[in-house]
Amino acid sequence: MRATVIHGPRDIRLEDVPDPEVRLATDALVRVVASCVCGSDLWPYRGVTETSEPGRIGHEFVGVVEDMGSEVATLKVGDFVIAPFALSDNTCVHCRNGVHTSCERGAWWGGRDEHDLPIDAGQGEAVRVPMADGTLVATPGMPDDAAIPSLLTLSDVMGTGHHAAVSAGVGPRTTVVVVGDGAVGLCGVLAAKRLGAERVIAMSRHSDRQEVARAFGATDIVEERGDAGVARVRDLLGGVGADSVLECVGTKESMQQAIDSARPGGRVGYVGVPAGGAELPIRQLFGSNVSVGGGVAPVRGYLEELLAATMDGSIDPGRVFDLHLPLEQVADAYAAMDERRSIKVLLRP
Amino acid sequence: MRATVIHGPRDIRLEDVPDPEVRLATDALVRVVASCVCGSDLWPYRGVTETSEPGRIGHEFVGVVEDMGSEVATLKVGDFVIAPFALSDNTCVHCRNGVHTSCERGAWWGGRDEHDLPIDAGQGEAVRVPMADGTLVATPGMPDDAAIPSLLTLSDVMGTGHHAAVSAGVGPRTTVVVVGDGAVGLCGVLAAKRLGAERVIAMSRHSDRQEVARAFGATDIVEERGDAGVARVRDLLGGVGADSVLECVGTKESMQQAIDSARPGGRVGYVGVPAGGAELPIRQLFGSNVSVGGGVAPVRGYLEELLAATMDGSIDPGRVFDLHLPLEQVADAYAAMDERRSIKVLLRP
Repeated sequence: MRATVIHGPRDIRLEDVPDPEVRLATDALVRVVASCVCGSDLWPYRGVTETSEPGRIGHEFVGVVEDMGSEVATLKVGDFVIAPFALSDNTCVHCRNGVHTSCERGAWWGGRDEHDLPIDAGQGEAVRVPMADGTLVATPGMPDDAAIPSLLTLSDVMGTGHHAAVSAGVGPRTTVVVVGDGAVGLCGVLAAKRLGAERVIAMSRHSDRQEVARAFGATDIVEERGDAGVARVRDLLGGVGADSVLECVGTKESMQQAIDSARPGGRVGYVGVPAGGAELPIRQLFGSNVSVGGGVAPVRGYLEELLAATMDGSIDPGRVFDLHLPLEQVADAYAAMDERRSIKVLLRP
Repeated sequence: MRATVIHGPRDIRLEDVPDPEVRLATDALVRVVASCVCGSDLWPYRGVTETSEPGRIGHEFVGVVEDMGSEVATLKVGDFVIAPFALSDNTCVHCRNGVHTSCERGAWWGGRDEHDLPIDAGQGEAVRVPMADGTLVATPGMPDDAAIPSLLTLSDVMGTGHHAAVSAGVGPRTTVVVVGDGAVGLCGVLAAKRLGAERVIAMSRHSDRQEVARAFGATDIVEERGDAGVARVRDLLGGVGADSVLECVGTKESMQQAIDSARPGGRVGYVGVPAGGAELPIRQLFGSNVSVGGGVAPVRGYLEELLAATMDGSIDPGRVFDLHLPLEQVADAYAAMDERRSIKVLLRP
C-alpha cells in the first residue's frame, strides 16, 4: 500500500510500504477512508522537532474494518470506525478515570505496540490497529459521505477543543475567550457554544477563520494581540475578564494572553502542545486565583458523546476542513497548512 | 494601646501606638480578643522579605465590636466578630464570584485603606476595620472561651486549608495527599475529611503534627519526602497517585512533590505562597493532564459555611494552636514558630 513518510524538514513523501495485516488477536485492519494533517505534524515538517530517520506520520483517520483478530469483540468487518489520535485499552484505571492518553498500555500511531511491533500511521491507505476494542469507536451504520469530515474531526481537533472547554470549566452562562484560531481553537468555540457558554470571544486576525468562528458560535471577534488584545477582551466583558479561557496554541505568548484574559478565580483550559519556554507564571496565578488545567486531550473518552452530537446534527465541526486533496498530494497538504493557506486539509486515499 | 511592630529580621516589639478610632462611616472599632502568628509572618521575621521601615504586623484576629460608623448595617456594638486576613467589600463582582482577595476595593491589615488612611494590623489590642460590613462576620451570640481558638482559625488557616481542598476538587470518595504539615496543611486534612475524602494521606515527619493530622482525619502518614515520598504515596494508592493533592508549603520542591503525587487527570490545589523559583513544569502537567489551581485564599467567601461547621462541632480546627501566650510575649511566639517548637501560637492581649 501507499503511506506517508517524513524524511526531514519539508520532505514529505508518499511511498510504497508493506501491506498491513492482522498480527494479534486483538488487532483490527482498517482501510482508511479519510485522514488529515495536524498542526502538530508541522513541528517535524518545520524542523522544530528532529526527524532522526524516515518515519510514518499522521494520527487522525476514519475508515472501514476489513479484518480483525479473534478476540475483537465490539467491532465487526464492515464497520465504519473513528480512530482517536492515541491508542488505549479503555479498561485500565486511567482510562476509567477518563484519561485515555495516560493508558497503562497506551501507544501512538507510527510508533510501536506493547509487543514492539510497528504500528502504521494515519496518512496512508490502511492501518493495523492494536487494542482495537479499546481504541476504535464504530458509527451506528455507514455514514453519508458528507458526514465524513465532521467524523474525522473526532479523531483529534473536535475532541481536543472540547477538552479545552471542559478543562476551562465552560458551562451554562459562562463567558469564554478562545486563544488560537487553528482547527483546535475553532472547535473550542464550537465546544464552548455546545456546553452553553453565554459569550464566546474568538481571537483571530484571519477573515476566513473569523467566518468559521462565527458559524461555530463566536459572539465576538478580537483581532488585537498581546496587551491590546487583553484590554479589548476586558472591555467586552465589563472590565472583569473571562470565566473560562481556552488556550489552543501552546506558545509562551499565547499562554500569557490566556492567563491575562481570565478573571480572578477564572480557569484556563490549555491543549496547545507547550513550545519552548512555556513555564507558567505561578506568582500571577497565585495572586489572581486563576487555575490552569488541560493537557494532551483524552479524546477517546469524549468520543461517544461527541459522536452522538455529530450524528444528530448538533455540531458540524467538519467545516474546519477548507481544503480536500487526494492522498497523492499529501506534500501539498503540508505546504498549504505550513503557509497558512488552509486551516486544515482532508486527505482521501 | 499596644501593638506589634516589626523592625527587621528577628526584631519583633510590642509598642505603644495611637489608639484606633472610627474614622469613616463604614468603619468598625474592634477590641481584639485573640490573634496569632502566621507562617507568612515568618518571611519578614527571617529576612526572606525585606522590612524597609518599622511596620505593624498580624492579619488574623477575632474580637468584639466596640464602636462603629453610621453606615455599618450588619453589625452591632458587642458583636463577636471574625476578621479574614484580607479586607473586602463583599459586593463587587469579584466578591460575588467568591474571589474576595481580588476585591476591587480590597486592602490588607497593616496597610492603607482606599482613602490612604493607615489600617491597624492584627497583633495588637484593637483594630480600626474599614469596610466593616464587607470584611467582618459576627458569630451568633457570644462564643464560649473554649471556642475561640477554632473561631480564630477562620481568619486564615482553616479557610486556607479549605481553599486548597476545594481547589483540588476534593469530594466524596476522593483520594487526597496533603503536602505540608503546618497549620494550613493540617487544616487541609480537616477540610478534606469534612468534604468527604475517602483516603487522606498526610506527609509529615513530626510526631506532634502527625498526631493532629490523625485527629483531623488523616488515614495515613508518609514521612518520606522527594522521590521516596512519591513512591510511598503511589504504593498506598495502588500505584495510581491521588485524585487531589493539597500543596500547603509554597516551595519549588513541595510543588513538585504535589504534582508527582497526583494521578493522571488529578488536581493540585495550592495555597502555599510561592517562594523563589516555583515556576510550574508545564510539559509534565500537559502530558499527565494534572491541573493546578488555587492561590491566595478568599477566606471571606468561605466564612459563613466554615463558621456554621465550627459552631455545630463538625470541625475543631483550634487544635492547631499548641501554644497560647499573652501578647506581651509576642516575640517569643515568633521564635517558637521560627524554631518549629510550635505549630501555631495564639496570642491574648
